[in-house]
Amino acid sequence: MYSFRIIGEEQGCSARLGEIHTSPEAVLTPAFMPVATQGACKAISPLDLRRLGFKVLIANAYHLYLRPGTDVISSHGGLRRYMSWDGAVVTDSGGYQVLSLAKSRKITDEGVSFRSHIDGSEHFFSPATSIAVQESLGSDVMMCFDECPAYDSPYEYVEKSVSLTTRWAKLCKQAKQDGSGALFGIVQGGVYEDLRTRSAKELVDMDFDGYSIGGLGVGEAREATYEIIELCAGLLPRERLRYLMGIGTPADIVRAVALGVDLFDCVIPTRNARNGTLFTSHGKVVIKNSRYAYDRSALDDNCSCYTCGNFSRSYLRHIFMAGEILSLQLMTLHNLYYYSKLMREIRESIEKGTFRQFCSGLIDAEEE
Amino acid sequence: MYSFRIIGEEQGCSARLGEIHTSPEAVLTPAFMPVATQGACKAISPLDLRRLGFKVLIANAYHLYLRPGTDVISSHGGLRRYMSWDGAVVTDSGGYQVLSLAKSRKITDEGVSFRSHIDGSEHFFSPATSIAVQESLGSDVMMCFDECPAYDSPYEYVEKSVSLTTRWAKLCKQAKQDGSGALFGIVQGGVYEDLRTRSAKELVDMDFDGYSIGGLGVGEAREATYEIIELCAGLLPRERLRYLMGIGTPADIVRAVALGVDLFDCVIPTRNARNGTLFTSHGKVVIKNSRYAYDRSALDDNCSCYTCGNFSRSYLRHIFMAGEILSLQLMTLHNLYYYSKLMREIRESIEKGTFRQFCSGLIDAEEE
Repeated sequence: MYSFRIIGEEQGCSARLGEIHTSPEAVLTPAFMPVATQGACKAISPLDLRRLGFKVLIANAYHLYLRPGTDVISSHGGLRRYMSWDGAVVTDSGGYQVLSLAKSRKITDEGVSFRSHIDGSEHFFSPATSIAVQESLGSDVMMCFDECPAYDSPYEYVEKSVSLTTRWAKLCKQAKQDGSGALFGIVQGGVYEDLRTRSAKELVDMDFDGYSIGGLGVGEAREATYEIIELCAGLLPRERLRYLMGIGTPADIVRAVALGVDLFDCVIPTRNARNGTLFTSHGKVVIKNSRYAYDRSALDDNCSCYTCGNFSRSYLRHIFMAGEILSLQLMTLHNLYYYSKLMREIRESIEKGTFRQFCSGLIDAEEE
Repeated sequence: MYSFRIIGEEQGCSARLGEIHTSPEAVLTPAFMPVATQGACKAISPLDLRRLGFKVLIANAYHLYLRPGTDVISSHGGLRRYMSWDGAVVTDSGGYQVLSLAKSRKITDEGVSFRSHIDGSEHFFSPATSIAVQESLGSDVMMCFDECPAYDSPYEYVEKSVSLTTRWAKLCKQAKQDGSGALFGIVQGGVYEDLRTRSAKELVDMDFDGYSIGGLGVGEAREATYEIIELCAGLLPRERLRYLMGIGTPADIVRAVALGVDLFDCVIPTRNARNGTLFTSHGKVVIKNSRYAYDRSALDDNCSCYTCGNFSRSYLRHIFMAGEILSLQLMTLHNLYYYSKLMREIRESIEKGTFRQFCSGLIDAEEE
C-alpha cells in the first residue's frame, strides 16, 4: 500500500505540501528521514525519534544484507519489527554503497560483484538481488539499484552510467513482486543537463511510484546542485513524490523544497551532532569552542528540546570534551529536534502561503 | 540537611532497611548509586536515570576539579543544576583517583601533589582542598580525603596509610563549613584485620555522619573482601549509614547487604553494558556470542525495561557488532534497570522478612 497526494502548493515557487500513505501510517511532506543505515539511528532510540515527531526512516540494503543478513531480519518479520520502529521505512538500494564502500568491485551490465567492507567476503548484487533484499526487509518504499558516478566523472562515463541505471531500473521493476513496497526510480546524470534530462525521461516513461534525485551533494559545486535539482524536479510528474537523496543542510532543504522536492534524508544532523556542531536559531554552535566554557545559557533559547530545556552550553561543552557518550545523545537529540521543527515549520508555512518568506529568512541566516 | 534512620531489620542477618534524608529528597536504603564520575552517567540521561527509579548519584571531586573546574560548576549553582539531576549527589573525595590516575604524585602529611592525567598540569590536594571542592559542587554527602593503598601493600605501608587517613579525616572535619553536606569517614586498612579495626575505631571516635568502607574490590581475594566488610560493619555504629565503595556485582551487593551495608556504587552495570555483558534473571548474557545471531527472544523475559520490551537479542547483538552507539544506550538502560529492580527487591524482601531467602536464591544463580 502506497499513495501520494498533493494537498497544497505555494504560489510563486514550486513548494508543495503532500501526504504519503504507507501501511504503517500517513506521512506529511516535505519530510525529513533520519538515517538508520544499519537498522539503528546513531545515538538515539526509536522511541525518542517518535517523540521528536519523525514518521519515516531510511535504511540501507547493502549494509543490512551484509550484516546481520536479510534472513535474520525477515525471521523477525521485517526491519520495522527488528528495530522496533512503528513508522514507515524507506530503503536505499545499495547501489551507492556497493560502489563507495565495497572492495574489488566490478560492474557489468548484470550488476556488481564486490567484496564486503566488513570481512572481505565475495558477493554479487544485481538489480533483482537489491529488490529481493529490500522486499525481505519489508521496505515501504524501495529504490532502484543505480550507479552513482563520482561528481567529476567525464561525460562519456556518466553517459554510460545513465544507460546502465535505466537498464537496471527496468530490471528492478520486473523483479518487484506484487504487493511489496512502492518502487522509486533514481535520476542520475551527474552535472550534465542533457544526461539528467535523458535519465529523468527514461525513468518517467517507466512509470515509477515516485522519483529520487541521486548523485548530488557528492562534491559538485553548490550552484550546480541547485540547477540540477530544479531541472530534474521540472521533468518529473507533478503528482509523484520527489525525493532528494542525501541532502542536506537546513538551507539546502528549504531551497530544494522551493524547487519542488518532497522528501529528504541526510546524515548531517546526526553526524554534526557527534562532531559537536549544532544547529540553532542563531546559527551554528561549535560546542568545543572555549567561549562556551562558562556559558550558562541554553544551546538555543528558542528550542524546546530536552537538551535545551535542561543543560547549558557549558555543560554540553564539558561532557563533549570529556568524551562522555551522553554528549552524543544530547546533541543528536537537539539537532534532530531542530530538523523536525524545521520540516514542521516548512509545512505550516506552505499551508499558510508564507513559505517564501520563511525560506528567505532561513537561507539568509545560514549563509551569513 | 542530612539524616539517616533505620526503618526495618532482617532477623538472622544484619540487613536493614533505612531512609536517608537529604535536601533534594528521601532515599530508601539499601540503595545503589549510578556513577557520574565526570558529572554524566555514561550513555544514559538523568531523565532516564529518574525513570529507572534512581534517587542518588555519585560524582568525583578529582575529575570535576580538573575538568570543567569547580568555578564553572559553582557558577551554575552546583553539580545538581549543572548536570540537571534533581536527586541527591554523593561525592568521592578524589583520594583514590589522585593516587590511581594522576601522574608524578607525591604524598606528604599535608596532602598529595600531582600532575593532571588530562594535561599534565601541577596541582596539590589537601584534605581541606578536597572538602572545599566537594562543597563547591554542592554535594549532599561528602567523603573524607583518604589514602587507598594497593591491595598487595605490605603491612608497614598500610599501617602508615591508616595513620594518614585518620589524620586527614580530622583535617577534613575541621575544614568542613557549617551548613554544607554530610561528611563520611572512610575506613581503610587493606586486608589487615587489626588495621581495619584501628581505622574504624579512630573514625568512629571522630563521630562522622556516616561511614564508608574503602579499599576493597581492588584485587584482593573475594573471601577477604567479605571478611573485611563483615568486620568493618560490626565496628561501625548501628544508627549510621554504611557505604561500601566501588562494589559490586549483584551477588556482592546482596552479600554485603546481609552484612549490614546500606549504600553502594559501582561501574559494573554501566561498564559491562558497554562491553556487551548483560545481567538477566537467567544469568549473564555476553551479547556478541554468535548463538544470539538469530535469537528473537528478549534479553530477559522477566524484565520490563524499554530494551527488553522492544528489542531481541539478535537485534542487540547486531547493533553491538556494528558499533552502533544505540547498543550502548539500550544495554546501559537494561543493566541499570536490573540494578534498580535488584535494590527494590532487596528492600521489599527486608520489609517482608524474606531477605535471606531472596539473597541465597540470587547468590546461587550468579555463582553457578
